[in-house]
Amino acid sequence: MKLKEFAKQLGLSPTTVSRALSGYPEVSEKTRKRVAEEAVRLGYRPNVNAVRLVTGRAGAIGVVMGRSGEFQFSEYMSGMAERLDSEDIDILVSPIAEQGGKDESQLYSRLATSGRVDAVIIHSPMPDDERIALLHRLGMPFLVHGRSETDVPHAWLDIDNEGAIRRATSHLLDLGHRRIAMINGRAGLTFSLHRDKGYRKALEQRGIPFDPRLVAHGHFTDELGFRFARSFLEQSPRPTAFVAGSMMTALGVYRAVRSFGLVVGRDISVIAHDDVFPYLTADNMVPSLSTTRSSLRAAGARSADLVLQLLSGRPATEIHELWPVELILRESTGPVPQLSD
Amino acid sequence: MKLKEFAKQLGLSPTTVSRALSGYPEVSEKTRKRVAEEAVRLGYRPNVNAVRLVTGRAGAIGVVMGRSGEFQFSEYMSGMAERLDSEDIDILVSPIAEQGGKDESQLYSRLATSGRVDAVIIHSPMPDDERIALLHRLGMPFLVHGRSETDVPHAWLDIDNEGAIRRATSHLLDLGHRRIAMINGRAGLTFSLHRDKGYRKALEQRGIPFDPRLVAHGHFTDELGFRFARSFLEQSPRPTAFVAGSMMTALGVYRAVRSFGLVVGRDISVIAHDDVFPYLTADNMVPSLSTTRSSLRAAGARSADLVLQLLSGRPATEIHELWPVELILRESTGPVPQLSD
Repeated sequence: MKLKEFAKQLGLSPTTVSRALSGYPEVSEKTRKRVAEEAVRLGYRPNVNAVRLVTGRAGAIGVVMGRSGEFQFSEYMSGMAERLDSEDIDILVSPIAEQGGKDESQLYSRLATSGRVDAVIIHSPMPDDERIALLHRLGMPFLVHGRSETDVPHAWLDIDNEGAIRRATSHLLDLGHRRIAMINGRAGLTFSLHRDKGYRKALEQRGIPFDPRLVAHGHFTDELGFRFARSFLEQSPRPTAFVAGSMMTALGVYRAVRSFGLVVGRDISVIAHDDVFPYLTADNMVPSLSTTRSSLRAAGARSADLVLQLLSGRPATEIHELWPVELILRESTGPVPQLSD
Repeated sequence: MKLKEFAKQLGLSPTTVSRALSGYPEVSEKTRKRVAEEAVRLGYRPNVNAVRLVTGRAGAIGVVMGRSGEFQFSEYMSGMAERLDSEDIDILVSPIAEQGGKDESQLYSRLATSGRVDAVIIHSPMPDDERIALLHRLGMPFLVHGRSETDVPHAWLDIDNEGAIRRATSHLLDLGHRRIAMINGRAGLTFSLHRDKGYRKALEQRGIPFDPRLVAHGHFTDELGFRFARSFLEQSPRPTAFVAGSMMTALGVYRAVRSFGLVVGRDISVIAHDDVFPYLTADNMVPSLSTTRSSLRAAGARSADLVLQLLSGRPATEIHELWPVELILRESTGPVPQLSD
């Protein structure tokens, strides 16, 4: 059945039917429901995207499922889902294999030129991120989740990674710690650089020299947290405190500390960044984990919201949001032990 | 610029250009690359989906981001991504809010009638799942990840949940355990029912009466694992072993056991289902965790593969895959302690 024929049977114009099926607000809920039900009943299916042909809108926001960070991906997506649930807008996930596979820029240009999405969200940007320049050149609306240092005008939403880690490190310094190890994210990403900067600034403020042997970069896994923490704890003098990049990293750090016969919160202090996961909470760890706290789910919801604003005409250059991060102190941090060295 | 005009500039037919942009295998890699590059260079963007108008294919597989299980979602999606990376097929995620929000059947029918996807994957089915009947009625190709008991012919991929839990429970019985608690998934879902069945069958085989006070259902979080395990351990006589639904559940069980001054692997045995996550591994837990093991990532990759087969014409009734689950014994399981009761 053609759109025209289907619309005729309903006594509506093809445009109204298309808009109803696309979830446009101009169409009343009652009409929308009727069109959806009749489409099912009469077996109408716009097999050649006649709907979008009329509305000129794809009704989807694109994200590339990146080579890392899948762990955080689902929380962020859930937040987007919450915001988009009432909008009838979908999320188009473009897959990219973790090893090898196609070129990432090609993937973004395909996404932008395919007509399948109205806007794109970029994750884990680098300071000079070529994806930003590319999407700008292609005229595709986009939001950066994170930050970049490019001159290309763009919308972004980020948390204050530098401030978070500066506060966490300063707190450990206040407690008397001097050898503070930092397990950071992958080298080269903006958020890792910001965290490095926050760590160094806190040390500088107290005149503590920076020791590169106390900083590691990598994916946020329990395994890497364990391995990095073990290698730090083998140093002499060993660190008395850790700043861990994620809760999973912290699980590994806890394990490493225990494997040395030491006790977290007494012999070794630990603060981690906590993205507020529903399946594992800092409060529930033993000892409970001090954290710099932000919600990836809230960031996902707000990102979806900002993309909708962008699509409604709000200039990208006006969409710059930097979220503060809370420092929440629990049992895993304490004064430096007197005989630690 | 119109498709026709763009194609003319390239000296190609509009059909070839459309196919190239859709990633059709009929078009050589060289042509595809050239078309993609020229599209960027000349600023060509098929704003009304002219590409799909010609090819009649959406180039995407639809999944609904459900009301639960987001934790496992990203591993499964990563698997799909690995398989689809070379295909230029995207994943269209339809959001559904966790609380309230729109009707799920409406969402599936919108997905099926929108022309945005070529096939749909259904997760966490129930024995009598109305989504299966709905998609069948709408003529939309689909794969069920999990199982259902409906008569409607459909393609599915599942792991042997019943066999996995039967083996896990039997192993605990072999070790002398008689009071074995089970923390299962949400009630009503097929996989939870299958696991309940496996648990009961193992008990029956030994003539151990089933005690409903030893079984709990709920989401797989550390928090619920802790609370359920605490309430089981308060019983007298208390259970000496646990079958936990996931690794996160097991983290909570470990914590609960410790909070009673008991030791996992000595006083209390624990086996959990392990979906093989890269950021937390059973091997790394202390003590290392005995598990029934399967890879959600592999299931995601295979699901994508089966959907492609379905779209190539393989009958849905031929696509039924049941994966065995390995039982991997580590340090968290041991003989029943002599003085436990």
